[in-house]
Amino acid sequence: MNLAEKLGLLDRPYAPGVVAYLNDYKVVVVKVKGEFVWHSHADTDDFFLVLSGRLTIQLRDRDVELREGEMFVVPRGLEHCPRADEEAHVLLIEPRGTVNTGDAGGELTVAEREI
Amino acid sequence: MNLAEKLGLLDRPYAPGVVAYLNDYKVVVVKVKGEFVWHSHADTDDFFLVLSGRLTIQLRDRDVELREGEMFVVPRGLEHCPRADEEAHVLLIEPRGTVNTGDAGGELTVAEREI
Repeated sequence: MNLAEKLGLLDRPYAPGVVAYLNDYKVVVVKVKGEFVWHSHADTDDFFLVLSGRLTIQLRDRDVELREGEMFVVPRGLEHCPRADEEAHVLLIEPRGTVNTGDAGGELTVAEREI
Repeated sequence: MNLAEKLGLLDRPYAPGVVAYLNDYKVVVVKVKGEFVWHSHADTDDFFLVLSGRLTIQLRDRDVELREGEMFVVPRGLEHCPRADEEAHVLLIEPRGTVNTGDAGGELTVAEREI
């Protein structure tokens, strides 16, 4: 499966699509542009790998700047807020059922869907 | 963390290095060149993402050909044998403790190590 082709199926930022499963985890692609919402996941770490562009993962005490081919795991429970000035393409791996907005909820929350 | 830099720390093919953890999973980079060994993992799926080069995942009934930016999940229990004619760089995600040679064992088995 080609991840760039899957990303081409996404019509807007922050609308993730599940492309595969790894045991009880989901493999997700997402376009990031602009700022997401501050949130945390109490029960799971959060894996980010940048496939193209640049991604900033804002933490409360610092920013993690990622370019293509760079990854970061946000530890469980740690507040974070992704941001990208230009569109970035990102691979996420999380347990199935993980809500994209974590504990924050709100209008950016989307249902899990396969693409 | 930059995956290409981590791959630069590996001195030979099929000597994987753990670069991060995601809950009870390990995030691994590995250089692939030549043929690995036929094996399966009874208890887990096996996630492959090609970071550079070309990778063939041989299955008993077909070959899965992957280029940079392409991924495949080998279902648990399915026999497979990775192969690359030229050196390829691959990201793997598996439960901690997963043995690289699965049920096959043998001289290509290596201990889990962080890089």
